[in-house]
Amino acid sequence: MTPSVISRNRLECLFDGIFAIAMTILVLELKVPDLADPHSAVEMGRKMAVYAPVFGSYVLSFVVLGLFWFRHNEQFHHCQFITNRMLVFQLVQLAMAAFFPFCAALLGRYPANSLSSVFYSGCVFIYLWAVWANWLVAKNAGALKPEALAGQYGRIRQRLRRSCLVITLLFGYTVFKLFAQ
Amino acid sequence: MTPSVISRNRLECLFDGIFAIAMTILVLELKVPDLADPHSAVEMGRKMAVYAPVFGSYVLSFVVLGLFWFRHNEQFHHCQFITNRMLVFQLVQLAMAAFFPFCAALLGRYPANSLSSVFYSGCVFIYLWAVWANWLVAKNAGALKPEALAGQYGRIRQRLRRSCLVITLLFGYTVFKLFAQ
Amino acid sequence: MTPSVISRNRLECLFDGIFAIAMTILVLELKVPDLADPHSAVEMGRKMAVYAPVFGSYVLSFVVLGLFWFRHNEQFHHCQFITNRMLVFQLVQLAMAAFFPFCAALLGRYPANSLSSVFYSGCVFIYLWAVWANWLVAKNAGALKPEALAGQYGRIRQRLRRSCLVITLLFGYTVFKLFAQ
Amino acid sequence: MTPSVISRNRLECLFDGIFAIAMTILVLELKVPDLADPHSAVEMGRKMAVYAPVFGSYVLSFVVLGLFWFRHNEQFHHCQFITNRMLVFQLVQLAMAAFFPFCAALLGRYPANSLSSVFYSGCVFIYLWAVWANWLVAKNAGALKPEALAGQYGRIRQRLRRSCLVITLLFGYTVFKLFAQ
Repeated sequence: MTPSVISRNRLECLFDGIFAIAMTILVLELKVPDLADPHSAVEMGRKMAVYAPVFGSYVLSFVVLGLFWFRHNEQFHHCQFITNRMLVFQLVQLAMAAFFPFCAALLGRYPANSLSSVFYSGCVFIYLWAVWANWLVAKNAGALKPEALAGQYGRIRQRLRRSCLVITLLFGYTVFKLFAQ
Repeated sequence: MTPSVISRNRLECLFDGIFAIAMTILVLELKVPDLADPHSAVEMGRKMAVYAPVFGSYVLSFVVLGLFWFRHNEQFHHCQFITNRMLVFQLVQLAMAAFFPFCAALLGRYPANSLSSVFYSGCVFIYLWAVWANWLVAKNAGALKPEALAGQYGRIRQRLRRSCLVITLLFGYTVFKLFAQ
Repeated sequence: MTPSVISRNRLECLFDGIFAIAMTILVLELKVPDLADPHSAVEMGRKMAVYAPVFGSYVLSFVVLGLFWFRHNEQFHHCQFITNRMLVFQLVQLAMAAFFPFCAALLGRYPANSLSSVFYSGCVFIYLWAVWANWLVAKNAGALKPEALAGQYGRIRQRLRRSCLVITLLFGYTVFKLFAQ
Repeated sequence: MTPSVISRNRLECLFDGIFAIAMTILVLELKVPDLADPHSAVEMGRKMAVYAPVFGSYVLSFVVLGLFWFRHNEQFHHCQFITNRMLVFQLVQLAMAAFFPFCAALLGRYPANSLSSVFYSGCVFIYLWAVWANWLVAKNAGALKPEALAGQYGRIRQRLRRSCLVITLLFGYTVFKLFAQ
């Protein structure tokens, strides 16, 4: 397959941009509480305690997005060019990353609702499968650097297979729990 | 015409930045619903179902912006410099891209309202004409690389002409429907 | 003076990022109206007509920020390095650019309120003076490229002086109008 | 230790992106007031005066983030590569930067509430300790350029130690004040 006209550099730019924004607007879900007594630290503390799951979801989501970003760096490092088919999977990843703050907000606000978990794990599920598909397509298209093929390719494919298995089980479990209610 | 003092690199940066943000804030229109029973997946599902058109508009708009970004890459790849006149058309494209989340929100919330379609298709309409104008101006200013002139120029111009024709018909149809009511 | 440790490239990145965001969140002020009849294009049109000044302010502000960005490119192009003192003026410009969406929202919502004009023109006023100061400081620090000194330096300084004069008069007029009420 | 696969350039991109967004969404906390008389500058002035602490918090936070960004440039300049352990501390810094707008909003809305100060200073506290840890880890991993080790390393470590001491005292004081109420 022929390389896409997309420059690696600009795809990185778009990727970093969307991740930077997704990681930052996670926090927009945290609202400054309305206080009856503006000087009361006790009241603020009590109202903030309600936000505890939102904070938890924020931290979890920041770590997840940070990990995704890290892994994307690693894989991109091994590619020498991008084909159009790879670009499609990259855009699926970006769509999920952009959608992530909504899932994080949902989970933060309704942590005990089984539908929240379906959304959250479903978003990660699609993301990870797109990463794996991208990796396989990259190999078949000859887009990986020769030294990556010799060394890292197998290790990363195996790790991705494991990640996809785990998230599929997790996603399946949340769907099962949703319908078993 | 003389090249602009604008460096290609920084225009790409601004472009990628605005597209990254537009693609990410599309999702801000999706609001976490207020639930009477926070544990009820059924209630959440019912309330989320109301958002179906918003989700649909989100996916459509993400695809449209992704396509625009992809095409911009392709054309930018063929330019060796930017003139000031080209910059004006680039900024029109950016203004439309920044305006896109509003149109997407309008269409998502009122999908059956004929004015929403006018806004949405009108935004794409202006964007595509600006792309075409940019392409013609680039050629006349001698900003295209010699190999682009020989090979891709004609093909891209033809594709743009077709896209502009289709969006003009679509836009005309939505305007007609608005007044035919 | 010695150059700052700031790389030109990263300052450009921050600048382009902040401008991209400021230009995009201008549109967040445009809210999708609440309609009694979701199918009524007439009602939507009437409610959108109320937003006419917000649209106007959006377009004006996009053009202003676009121009600022363009001019910044031009001047940055002539600098070979950044000193710490120049960095301060750059950060003042960035603070004003980040503050701009608020001023645009104020002007869009209350176009006839004299205080809105004071805020809006005041923001541009500080921005332009910071640009001018930056230009003079750059020259004194020897940060301009030799060919810029010969050719463009004087022309740009003169244009900046004129711009600063115009905005000072405009700002003064809005302040006068505020107190003359 | 071995360098991470993370390219310095992309980490800079993510860093600049998150800082650009954090610095820009600070302003989203400033809301256009609702006026009974849209033409009344006096009413707008009175309502804006209520926002004075929000403005103050905005300016302070912009300066703090600007300083952080400046210092990050300086230290990054001295590193020749990034190890995975350094990346963790960088992500902690980014998480704090992304969290900063919330703290700024809290302090701006409830400046006299002792819990706001705990949040605000706590955020800076974690940020600065992560910077220091990053610096020490960078040295131990041999990630600093040889000339940095000879010249700037000691000076920067000392400045960081001082900054960490000051913020720890300040943070301790706000915590003390919270419980001493």
